[in-house]
Amino acid sequence: MEHVVRNAWYVLGWTAEIGTGPFARRVLDEPVVAFRRRDGRLAALLDRCAHRLVPLSLGSVVDDTLQCGYHGLRYDDTGACVHVPGQANIPPAARVRSFPVTERYGAAWIWMGDPEQADPGLIPAIERYGAPGWTVIWGAPQHHRSHYLNIVENLQDPAHTTYVHPGTIGNPASSDIAPVIEESEGHIVTYRWTLDAEPPPIDRKNANFSGLADRCQYYHFFPPCTSRVDVVTMQAGQEHTEANMDRGLRAFSYKFLTPETDTATHFFWLHVRNFGVGDQELDERLMRDMGRTFEEDNVIVSAMQREQDATGVRQLAWLRIDAGPSRARRMIEKMAAADAAAAPATSTAS
Amino acid sequence: MEHVVRNAWYVLGWTAEIGTGPFARRVLDEPVVAFRRRDGRLAALLDRCAHRLVPLSLGSVVDDTLQCGYHGLRYDDTGACVHVPGQANIPPAARVRSFPVTERYGAAWIWMGDPEQADPGLIPAIERYGAPGWTVIWGAPQHHRSHYLNIVENLQDPAHTTYVHPGTIGNPASSDIAPVIEESEGHIVTYRWTLDAEPPPIDRKNANFSGLADRCQYYHFFPPCTSRVDVVTMQAGQEHTEANMDRGLRAFSYKFLTPETDTATHFFWLHVRNFGVGDQELDERLMRDMGRTFEEDNVIVSAMQREQDATGVRQLAWLRIDAGPSRARRMIEKMAAADAAAAPATSTAS
Amino acid sequence: MEHVVRNAWYVLGWTAEIGTGPFARRVLDEPVVAFRRRDGRLAALLDRCAHRLVPLSLGSVVDDTLQCGYHGLRYDDTGACVHVPGQANIPPAARVRSFPVTERYGAAWIWMGDPEQADPGLIPAIERYGAPGWTVIWGAPQHHRSHYLNIVENLQDPAHTTYVHPGTIGNPASSDIAPVIEESEGHIVTYRWTLDAEPPPIDRKNANFSGLADRCQYYHFFPPCTSRVDVVTMQAGQEHTEANMDRGLRAFSYKFLTPETDTATHFFWLHVRNFGVGDQELDERLMRDMGRTFEEDNVIVSAMQREQDATGVRQLAWLRIDAGPSRARRMIEKMAAADAAAAPATSTAS
Repeated sequence: MEHVVRNAWYVLGWTAEIGTGPFARRVLDEPVVAFRRRDGRLAALLDRCAHRLVPLSLGSVVDDTLQCGYHGLRYDDTGACVHVPGQANIPPAARVRSFPVTERYGAAWIWMGDPEQADPGLIPAIERYGAPGWTVIWGAPQHHRSHYLNIVENLQDPAHTTYVHPGTIGNPASSDIAPVIEESEGHIVTYRWTLDAEPPPIDRKNANFSGLADRCQYYHFFPPCTSRVDVVTMQAGQEHTEANMDRGLRAFSYKFLTPETDTATHFFWLHVRNFGVGDQELDERLMRDMGRTFEEDNVIVSAMQREQDATGVRQLAWLRIDAGPSRARRMIEKMAAADAAAAPATSTAS
Repeated sequence: MEHVVRNAWYVLGWTAEIGTGPFARRVLDEPVVAFRRRDGRLAALLDRCAHRLVPLSLGSVVDDTLQCGYHGLRYDDTGACVHVPGQANIPPAARVRSFPVTERYGAAWIWMGDPEQADPGLIPAIERYGAPGWTVIWGAPQHHRSHYLNIVENLQDPAHTTYVHPGTIGNPASSDIAPVIEESEGHIVTYRWTLDAEPPPIDRKNANFSGLADRCQYYHFFPPCTSRVDVVTMQAGQEHTEANMDRGLRAFSYKFLTPETDTATHFFWLHVRNFGVGDQELDERLMRDMGRTFEEDNVIVSAMQREQDATGVRQLAWLRIDAGPSRARRMIEKMAAADAAAAPATSTAS
Repeated sequence: MEHVVRNAWYVLGWTAEIGTGPFARRVLDEPVVAFRRRDGRLAALLDRCAHRLVPLSLGSVVDDTLQCGYHGLRYDDTGACVHVPGQANIPPAARVRSFPVTERYGAAWIWMGDPEQADPGLIPAIERYGAPGWTVIWGAPQHHRSHYLNIVENLQDPAHTTYVHPGTIGNPASSDIAPVIEESEGHIVTYRWTLDAEPPPIDRKNANFSGLADRCQYYHFFPPCTSRVDVVTMQAGQEHTEANMDRGLRAFSYKFLTPETDTATHFFWLHVRNFGVGDQELDERLMRDMGRTFEEDNVIVSAMQREQDATGVRQLAWLRIDAGPSRARRMIEKMAAADAAAAPATSTAS
């Protein structure tokens, strides 16, 4: 895969997706299968039996092992084969790769690179997760048919919302305000404040603003795979202190990108907010509206990918609004180059 | 693309297909988008934004410009970008190709080659279009999964109708009469008269012949893309003068081929006739029956294309009935070679 | 195609599949069309007209010939063109390959190799076919998306049934009993007896066993394409004579593999049994249950093929249970190599 960072945590799936049986998903162009042991811990293996290459996800979970659905070979959480029906000895080749996997924030996180470096402390922190007065929703996983860097650029790009999402988060009033960009080690943020403006339709639904609003959007990016958009819509005319922002409508909208192939990406989103806590109808509306919003992005980035594939070109003209997206992209390309230099790709067969 | 003539007018679509929004169709393996300005005139651009390559057809028409659905860049009818949100200057690279396009005969015609040569006078004339006593129907556009030259050959080939269209225009009586072929500069015609024969089923439906009929079919071809079949079914025993032919059932059946890729072709057909004028039921029947007839051809040419692709061979044995089709093919191949020599293909990315 | 034996009889289809019109199926990566003459005999030709390559299966059967659906060329059972509309002479190139084809056991058998060697005596004999007290069912043809050698291995592999078919023919009790393998010229058999065991669910349905049963499975293989599984479930404690076996539940389950491409195989199965003769409900149940069982194999071998294609690897670790499948495979690979050396592949275009 191109421009991919193997030494990083990626969302393999939501906890709620993973039941009692094997759970399969392709990550960084490798087939992965996860299964849960009796003590509740997850294990993740290469989804390909070391015997005849049948996906282990067609098998079943037996006594804390994953049993192949073809001949019953059983693999433990380290990928070692621990049982071969019909023979006592285990051939040395009967082993599959295992991947560090851990659960946090309602998600299973997988590390596709060097297991030695798989520090759970590197899992991105989620703001206000579990704090009183805040609530969380996990969006239905989406499948975007585009290289993840196109999606990274989209996520660092406030300028597109006016055109791609006119019915929800887009706001015509914001289209001429240039964003501010700040970069530091492993972090980039693009933000802009819109002052004394009509709140966008979606905020109008969620709160009763008496008049105009100040609104900010902070597009944080933590390379290679985590986007956090902080959105505040607050009564216009107040000072922009943390306390005043918390009295407005405030949300932290996370997206976690998990590259599937060079032209497809698993798109996970999760939303933490301080309004309508316990309001199930609002939960459902946000699930639907935000899901639809991100599918609008999917239409754009998928069409873009098709044209990039057809032409072999990524971009032709450069605009001012490209500054943030380009910085994020360069930051990741640099990380990916260092990652590739440090850990050469392993064979996909083993 | 192979054997394609860029300096020619092609039907991009029927006028009735093009509404108020952008209209997209692939022509000569390039993505094209058309839009209508407030004065009613059409514009046609490459369907690929000069910024991030997103298809412009995902955007919208705003003030006589086409606005990209991603970041709101606006292009005028010349392909020049005239507005970039968030900045005053327009980068020189922000420009897409535009194509000459004009409307006539209820169709939008596009010129994919050198714009300097796009003389509207070269649009094929349609016989009796708008003349009193004649009426026109426009068939639903079809998509034939074959290189257009296979379809050209089919259209210059009276011999196939007996076998491909037994239920409509085919006539067993005609199958042993060799056609006459005449060729001149930019025109080829294959024709045959069938004398004192039973009229085919479709004519029996459209008129009350008391007995036998004389029937002629002229298969005109105007390379590279226009076929006109003149069909007369007249009472047997009369002299074949123009006046007598007009007293029979007479129709001019046009097909306009628009190559989409090397293995697919947009197939437009249009039918001018002097019988049943104002008869809406007949219009509907012809729409249905002729559409079905050409889909019968589609089945054949698409299957032929698959076998040609599988074998790398176009034809194995040569028959007498191939004379007309082969001449049309050679005529076009010669045109295509001259066209390619005069105007080297432009990059597909710009 | 890889590892394919051309000089062999393959099932083209069941007799019941072939009606009055042309019947098309791809065999050994060649398009084949069969048609029935008025005397009832079948003919089989390459499904590609020698004129413009249109599949002859789009045409029709006329007077013991196959008439092309494009221009009416007619081919007899030898593949010679015997009629070209519009001309008296037949061009020498107007000829398609014909294949020996014969019907037996309710199946049409085709020979894709050297016609001189097509001895009908080489068609596999079907045990007890038509004998009193025995009945036959023909399964609905299946399409397995895997190279046929993967399926051969599966068919010579008793070990998989426990895991792939737990609901039908699988039997947990049998999983630790090593099979016996015997090989002779053009034949390999793997078998095992399970003694004093609970009969599997499917046998419980078909007979009233008072207690435990002895059960044997013989996995015969007649390379390159025929598998016969003999299954007996008999009251435990009796001597295993032919007569005693016939008093139990006994069946001969045939599978005939017809390679379609390098990654797909037509899978035909046929079942001869000595119980429930005339019981239509049982016929229907077996049709459904056995069909479902073989589709369970299809899921496995198709997934395996996808992983083999993705990795370029067939197998990684080797187990004791691979002995039988590997022998069958090597036997076929040897046959295929000899076959390829004797008869170089003909052009696919003619």
